Amino acid sequence: MQDSYIDLHEAILKRRDTRHFTAEKVPEATLLKALEAAIQAPSVGLSQPWRFIDISSWDRQKLTDNFQEQRFRAEAQISDPNQLATHKQLKLSGIIEAPILLAVYCEYPEIETYTIGTIGNPRALEWSCACAIQNLWLSLTSEGFGAGWVSILDLAKLARQMAVSDRWEPLGIICIGRPATNYGGRPMLEVAQWRNAKKNIENFYWRHSTEQ
Amino acid sequence: MQDSYIDLHEAILKRRDTRHFTAEKVPEATLLKALEAAIQAPSVGLSQPWRFIDISSWDRQKLTDNFQEQRFRAEAQISDPNQLATHKQLKLSGIIEAPILLAVYCEYPEIETYTIGTIGNPRALEWSCACAIQNLWLSLTSEGFGAGWVSILDLAKLARQMAVSDRWEPLGIICIGRPATNYGGRPMLEVAQWRNAKKNIENFYWRHSTEQ
Repeated sequence: MQDSYIDLHEAILKRRDTRHFTAEKVPEATLLKALEAAIQAPSVGLSQPWRFIDISSWDRQKLTDNFQEQRFRAEAQISDPNQLATHKQLKLSGIIEAPILLAVYCEYPEIETYTIGTIGNPRALEWSCACAIQNLWLSLTSEGFGAGWVSILDLAKLARQMAVSDRWEPLGIICIGRPATNYGGRPMLEVAQWRNAKKNIENFYWRHSTEQ
Repeated sequence: MQDSYIDLHEAILKRRDTRHFTAEKVPEATLLKALEAAIQAPSVGLSQPWRFIDISSWDRQKLTDNFQEQRFRAEAQISDPNQLATHKQLKLSGIIEAPILLAVYCEYPEIETYTIGTIGNPRALEWSCACAIQNLWLSLTSEGFGAGWVSILDLAKLARQMAVSDRWEPLGIICIGRPATNYGGRPMLEVAQWRNAKKNIENFYWRHSTEQ
């Protein structure tokens, strides 16, 4: 564990979805600190359903093939030629170059196991895993490293290749390394003129005073 | 915006799933700062699908009725009498007493709208919302406040009562206020002897060196 110190809100603002990495190795202590942060996340019914598997040593080309196939499938859905042209130029993953790749899964409990809080929606388990990923991401940011969450994948195929239990739901691959850029402190998709992020909470927050 | 300063990892460790609140009001600046943190979360394809609706002024009894119904439904699934007895004694929400209640939704885009990163699993949108909730939660923790995520609800019924779009998927209610206790710095469900959290990353992290 290192002794770096960063303000929470500064880390939240600095976190970027990184797709450009340098070749610099990630110190094991940094990765372990981030994983320690991840497992402090809230989890529905204290289920701790997150599973992280380091697949850094895999043949990256096979992962990239999976990614590219799904990217082409996605691009077939774009009817606007200008949007398609922009999309084709986007760098959407750092799978090839990121020093560390973590596959992330949500383990659903055995059917007979009772878990508090899943009666409203069992996907609350996946939401817990996302909270853990966010902790991991913030921790890496605080240490000067970065991450990118790649979900343009045939996730079922990835799970088959990894031969995990069918109770393990794949959430994607987290690419981890030293960012080659911070995109000017803005979301990369904004810099690439794909889409502008809305900045004001008025777009996302309302008061609902009248009960129906 | 306030000028409090807290180390990221300290906030991550201090965050608790709070179900016991004092009557102290939450300053508006604190809530707004937490919402600003929330909307800095990563979102798949820069979709920013999170929607927060303040329902603090609602008739709490109706919300509690929804919660209690689902709690009883859940308890009917518990066959072990000791487990059931423990479960019945758990405080599982602060819906009645929390000064602020936020309903959280994930807005799915119109079917013809293309969103980057959702081809692997469209639920990536919900995962983005969970990251936003985690940011909100950490921000509140850093200001000495707390939150609890209540998912023991008939979520569809809640959405109907709020008359939201059917593209809005409910994720639950976040109860916000000043914690009456920090549960000794441990998960409340652990203190209540419901379940012990696993502390070591060895339970959640593996290296997978052999590609299948």
